[in-house]
Amino acid sequence: MTLYLTESNIAGLLDMRITLDVLDEAFKTQANGDALNRSRSRIPLPNGSYNLMAAGISSKKVVGQKSYTATSAGAAFHILLYDGEGKGLLAVMSAGFLGKMRTGGVSGLATKYMAKNGADSVGVIGAGNQAETQLEAVVESTGIKNVRVFSRTAEKRNGFAQRMGEKLGIDIIPVDTASAATKDTSILLVITNSAEPVLPSELLEPGVHVNAAGNNVWTGRELDTDAIVKFNSIVVDDIEQAKIESGELMRAAETGQFNWGSAIALSDIVAGKVQARTNDLDITLFESLGIAIEDIAVAERVYQMAIEQGVGHTLPA
Amino acid sequence: MTLYLTESNIAGLLDMRITLDVLDEAFKTQANGDALNRSRSRIPLPNGSYNLMAAGISSKKVVGQKSYTATSAGAAFHILLYDGEGKGLLAVMSAGFLGKMRTGGVSGLATKYMAKNGADSVGVIGAGNQAETQLEAVVESTGIKNVRVFSRTAEKRNGFAQRMGEKLGIDIIPVDTASAATKDTSILLVITNSAEPVLPSELLEPGVHVNAAGNNVWTGRELDTDAIVKFNSIVVDDIEQAKIESGELMRAAETGQFNWGSAIALSDIVAGKVQARTNDLDITLFESLGIAIEDIAVAERVYQMAIEQGVGHTLPA
Repeated sequence: MTLYLTESNIAGLLDMRITLDVLDEAFKTQANGDALNRSRSRIPLPNGSYNLMAAGISSKKVVGQKSYTATSAGAAFHILLYDGEGKGLLAVMSAGFLGKMRTGGVSGLATKYMAKNGADSVGVIGAGNQAETQLEAVVESTGIKNVRVFSRTAEKRNGFAQRMGEKLGIDIIPVDTASAATKDTSILLVITNSAEPVLPSELLEPGVHVNAAGNNVWTGRELDTDAIVKFNSIVVDDIEQAKIESGELMRAAETGQFNWGSAIALSDIVAGKVQARTNDLDITLFESLGIAIEDIAVAERVYQMAIEQGVGHTLPA
Repeated sequence: MTLYLTESNIAGLLDMRITLDVLDEAFKTQANGDALNRSRSRIPLPNGSYNLMAAGISSKKVVGQKSYTATSAGAAFHILLYDGEGKGLLAVMSAGFLGKMRTGGVSGLATKYMAKNGADSVGVIGAGNQAETQLEAVVESTGIKNVRVFSRTAEKRNGFAQRMGEKLGIDIIPVDTASAATKDTSILLVITNSAEPVLPSELLEPGVHVNAAGNNVWTGRELDTDAIVKFNSIVVDDIEQAKIESGELMRAAETGQFNWGSAIALSDIVAGKVQARTNDLDITLFESLGIAIEDIAVAERVYQMAIEQGVGHTLPA
């Protein structure tokens, strides 16, 4: 029996607390060697790209893939979740909401393990769609309620502050410069589509933890190389994938100012094998690309909840 | 709107004639540079593997993937077909039947372009599931009605001869040695799961064309290196994929008895850029691995027919 889950089926099942718990477990599983990730592969389209990524989680007995077209006409995301012992296709999921939740969630997870002790404020650079789940995840994982948001357009940052303030039950202050968002701030979320750096190095204050989640195309970059060299540790969700997708790390590596050997896998941080910071003055970066283990782990939990709660549509055999 | 097509939906739409026509067009499209293939990637499972392959065909404005679990508990195949300009997911297909048709079809296609003039007989080595569509395709593409079949088990070869003889409306003679199937035979189909060679080089007679379609795992091989060196031309459906999947070519290349530079892409044969044989004594090999362009091209035609004929199930939005 194969279950089909629509976007609204999944929105009714999945929240950020569950997403954070699932991701925490998934990265520990990966550190144990019980999850296997296949980097994103792309096929160019006239107005965008087709993207395909796969993972297996043996401890959950599932394997599967996410694929999507991302074009100027919009994006469409789908997950196929298979039984890991060959009993067939468990579910087909429309996975736009799920993807936003896991992308936010992984930044929340990284922040929990990487931010300094006593972190008490969040600055957001970018006020788009993905910034919402990024902030939701960090607020959920840290409990911090002191938030400022900057984007270049006043209307966008004001709308974001209003909307997300209500949603998360906190006050969010819109600010009109990047430096107003970064000043005396413990945690930064950089979530733009910018091809040009939006967080110059002089805005990186001692002790700050930065999540950069806006780009997974090598032509994009949110941080310049001067910023990259200031980080005491750089963590990525997948090192192999970062080597072909992280524009900012690839540029810094090309000029010899960053060494891939120093990149840390998020799984090693979550499993406690490696510490991201040695003191409260270290400057840390989580570079989020989005990997299939995140999708498949969350999809597996969504599938279990759908079965338990009788949600979804059974596909004809 | 996304269409879901079951195995029986597709079995009601697709026949071998259509499959051959679609594949002929698809390989010509690939030769023109209007189709892009991504080699199969695998994730190991405790009792088998998960497999993922993708292709885009820009002339048809589609892109998509096939994925499947193949395990000791059985196999489950699915295709996702996307609009190539970002208008979303066109169809989800259960693709076991489609896969068998395209695997047979591509051997039929290769045979049409590679067999000698006046080819008049077919020998089949192997009598399993996949041998049926291999033979159907070659009979459909060549019109040959003189067929012999060998497999080690008398019951299997007799059953195959009876069943496929009725289906194709021809007489098929079961024979009890490989050499009885290969003697004075123009076209050979080798379609087993064997890890050991089943077609020794001494059975390769002048002028024969061989289709080897049984293996796409590097540990398998149906031909030994002595046989490989006898071929005047070796054609594969995808050279890059052959380098990681064709056990027999990989072994021959390792020992220096085969050079990947001499491998010919099927697209170049179908488009007439390269000739597989210079005379009726040449011995030719088509090594079939199965590539995503084949799946996506056939899926696109099936989708068009389903829309025209009102077949299939609309997925809830």
